[in-house]
Amino acid sequence: MSSSTTTKTTPPNQLFLGTFIHPTSQQDELEYLHNTAVFVEGASGKIVAVEKDVDRTRTVDEVLVRLGWSAAETKIFDAAAAASHHHHDGKEKRHNGGGVRFFFPGFVDTHIHASQYPNAGIFGKSTLLDWLNTYTFPLEASLGQDLAKAKKVYGRCVRRTLAHGTTCAAYFATRDVAATNLLTDVCLAAGQRALVGRVCMDERKLCPEWYCDESAGESVQRTREVVEHARAVDPAGEWVRPIVTPRFAPSCTAAAMQGLSDLAKEEALAVQTHISENTGECELVAELFPQETAGGRGYAGVYDAFGLLGDKTILAHAVHLSEQEAKLVAERGAGVSHCPCSNTAITSGAAKVRWLLDHGVNVGLGTDVSGGYSPSVLEAARQASLVSRHVAMGLEGEEKERTKLTVEEVLWLATRGGARLVGLEGIVGGFEVGMEWDAQLVGLGGVEGEDDEDHDAGNVDIFGWESWDNIVAKWLFGGDDRNTTKVWVKGRLVHERA
Amino acid sequence: MSSSTTTKTTPPNQLFLGTFIHPTSQQDELEYLHNTAVFVEGASGKIVAVEKDVDRTRTVDEVLVRLGWSAAETKIFDAAAAASHHHHDGKEKRHNGGGVRFFFPGFVDTHIHASQYPNAGIFGKSTLLDWLNTYTFPLEASLGQDLAKAKKVYGRCVRRTLAHGTTCAAYFATRDVAATNLLTDVCLAAGQRALVGRVCMDERKLCPEWYCDESAGESVQRTREVVEHARAVDPAGEWVRPIVTPRFAPSCTAAAMQGLSDLAKEEALAVQTHISENTGECELVAELFPQETAGGRGYAGVYDAFGLLGDKTILAHAVHLSEQEAKLVAERGAGVSHCPCSNTAITSGAAKVRWLLDHGVNVGLGTDVSGGYSPSVLEAARQASLVSRHVAMGLEGEEKERTKLTVEEVLWLATRGGARLVGLEGIVGGFEVGMEWDAQLVGLGGVEGEDDEDHDAGNVDIFGWESWDNIVAKWLFGGDDRNTTKVWVKGRLVHERA
Repeated sequence: MSSSTTTKTTPPNQLFLGTFIHPTSQQDELEYLHNTAVFVEGASGKIVAVEKDVDRTRTVDEVLVRLGWSAAETKIFDAAAAASHHHHDGKEKRHNGGGVRFFFPGFVDTHIHASQYPNAGIFGKSTLLDWLNTYTFPLEASLGQDLAKAKKVYGRCVRRTLAHGTTCAAYFATRDVAATNLLTDVCLAAGQRALVGRVCMDERKLCPEWYCDESAGESVQRTREVVEHARAVDPAGEWVRPIVTPRFAPSCTAAAMQGLSDLAKEEALAVQTHISENTGECELVAELFPQETAGGRGYAGVYDAFGLLGDKTILAHAVHLSEQEAKLVAERGAGVSHCPCSNTAITSGAAKVRWLLDHGVNVGLGTDVSGGYSPSVLEAARQASLVSRHVAMGLEGEEKERTKLTVEEVLWLATRGGARLVGLEGIVGGFEVGMEWDAQLVGLGGVEGEDDEDHDAGNVDIFGWESWDNIVAKWLFGGDDRNTTKVWVKGRLVHERA
Repeated sequence: MSSSTTTKTTPPNQLFLGTFIHPTSQQDELEYLHNTAVFVEGASGKIVAVEKDVDRTRTVDEVLVRLGWSAAETKIFDAAAAASHHHHDGKEKRHNGGGVRFFFPGFVDTHIHASQYPNAGIFGKSTLLDWLNTYTFPLEASLGQDLAKAKKVYGRCVRRTLAHGTTCAAYFATRDVAATNLLTDVCLAAGQRALVGRVCMDERKLCPEWYCDESAGESVQRTREVVEHARAVDPAGEWVRPIVTPRFAPSCTAAAMQGLSDLAKEEALAVQTHISENTGECELVAELFPQETAGGRGYAGVYDAFGLLGDKTILAHAVHLSEQEAKLVAERGAGVSHCPCSNTAITSGAAKVRWLLDHGVNVGLGTDVSGGYSPSVLEAARQASLVSRHVAMGLEGEEKERTKLTVEEVLWLATRGGARLVGLEGIVGGFEVGMEWDAQLVGLGGVEGEDDEDHDAGNVDIFGWESWDNIVAKWLFGGDDRNTTKVWVKGRLVHERA
């Protein structure tokens, strides 16, 4: 595993050749573009041409002329050539039994606590509220007290998520300003797109004394400080953007939520928080905010009351939303980050993703490290498929069948679905002219390959007789970071495997 | 990935030094043996001494003398020395931030269809009965028609399962005798313990014409042939044993089940089949066997009526057993292979493992490739934990808490639980004197290590401040075959990572 980037230097114009697979605007569809050329402009990182069924010497040259690009100064990356055992004859599109390579859009992780990364996999028998006190708050607090530790944790987290193909992540950091700014810096240096939030929590009834904002004013003021830092290091927010982050309603006073809402509007910032993860939490919110939750407005009503529910809002979990709440969330244009690994691990419940989509709610995927045990969005997509089957088990007939999320749908959620939540709809998540080159090169090993001894191609075995949709299914259910061989953000190579 | 072995040559006496973690006879307990020496006799592959808190120069020498072993001819394997960045001071027991290594018992996979291995991850939106016809039967049938294909598929399957730490597997092969015998040979050559079953299916109403035994007589006769082959190549059944394998009640006639039952008794063979995977299947069985299922005897009653339900029987799935059936299964001493990946993937249901255990049923884990998407028992253990949480979501209070399987319990199921099902109770699954050395060396990377660039230590990051139970949890939830660095069966090294 290695990563390097320069977000400040301009890469050359680039031409990518090979098979491109991406979700289309249709949620249940993948498009397979074989023998295709994608032209990425260096200065903007944007895709400026997509040519299907190319003839390398004729079509490619024509496009270069049309774009006014010098062939000599264009960097060519041929996925087929990169696969040592790949046999490319233009018709078969892949080598029989010798592995496959294809480009896929980078993943968007719409909910991850970078500060909790060292605890991934550790949750015991706990559920949400005791998990926070036992595992989470002590670790988060420690990062503010020890910036060297924070650097180690954030550095490792960002390297790992890049290695898993996460080209954009919406991060929760900690209460600490310096540690949060450090995370911003780490993302920028690594070339990962990120929304970075300083976690606000000022409700003394819920937060431990040793990990709590002094006042609503402090919650807002400290958030201003991280906004300023992020804007100083990346003024246009091309790579890193600050995001207003009230932890969740039970840990915030009304004054803090109102203040943060005002700040978000004033500075045109996105907002992220948690909602309706656990039934105990929902009851607590009803107790703490009787007025805002009344009349069936529920948990969502609390955020709405303080103006925190808008089309730039990411709500993590949404496991137990009522019909009325789902309609409100959809109406406000807020997005839900579905976190299947976490919801199952800490026994929060099984989110009804089909039902949310049917209600017009925007949905993306979140790893929710460390409630979730894995920093991999591919794992989150796999578990989204599996959790939808658990939801289906309680249903009958056609409704049961519809409830299952398909391979295509969970990969859509992992890319385009997430892109919408983080404000990058139409910018990342697919291979279309005008979109930016946030991509991963996926390589799957073939059983005929002789590379086993010196190169670990991962667990997916391609026998050569699989259809392309079978290949993608095998990647989804058997793949891991070994199959993500290269990762680009805005045209920059930010990760490649040795 | 590489594997090599000689089941026919005798390894030297061996001494393993390091940390040993293993499930005890208590289902919910792991024992942590630090700074320990385990002495394995070459000829028998048996553990002849376990010495805790050893002093290398004194204790070890004393034990060698006691055993009458020549120090010069004893091969010493020191896990600490094998970990390049491991720092061992006898008290701390592990290096701060530099990764850890420990021995763990090999995994037992109590249910896996080797013939379906190429389809791992491919199941679409299907459920059991259409999945069989669409994906499974055509692939299985093809292996009998093409032994070169069978060799490729079985060879890869056995290499992969060994690489995932599976030291013993109960395999379903296909209907074909030659292909089934090939699987027996492949396991023997690779040094994996295996129970290998020729799949019997003679019910023409359910089986496709092109993949069906001619008669009950053929089912029995062909099974006899694979029994003879297995006994010819491994007379004592030390490594490979034949197992009587009626596919499942709907695909077998009463005559075939009775004939197979008689054969099993006559030859003292184990039996494996499927039970109560899917509600549609349960209804079908009630229709096909009205007499045997009557009076609440249910699906289990069918196998019992034909004498197939005994203490050497492995029943895969058991998702929808009634109380009466669970009691019958427990009474007969039959075991249940819990296959969480498969049950979720093809939406069969969520097996109630705590409830089965409460009823005194023996339970192990099965990957159930390719209903299950992964050949890894570690993944099955992880999913067993997660599925138990889905079962818990439907419950309240203390019952809800009890229903969740702990880290310790799912690792017990993956080792000792499975050992009991395959007739190896007290022989494999733990590190006790008298047990055989079926083990894996687990290595987890440390964030301080400098080995990232040239060695892929997998996804688990050890920061150095974790407790040992946290380390095991991180392995369970984030580990993969990269962390299984060496695998032994009966004292023979059968897999190691390059």
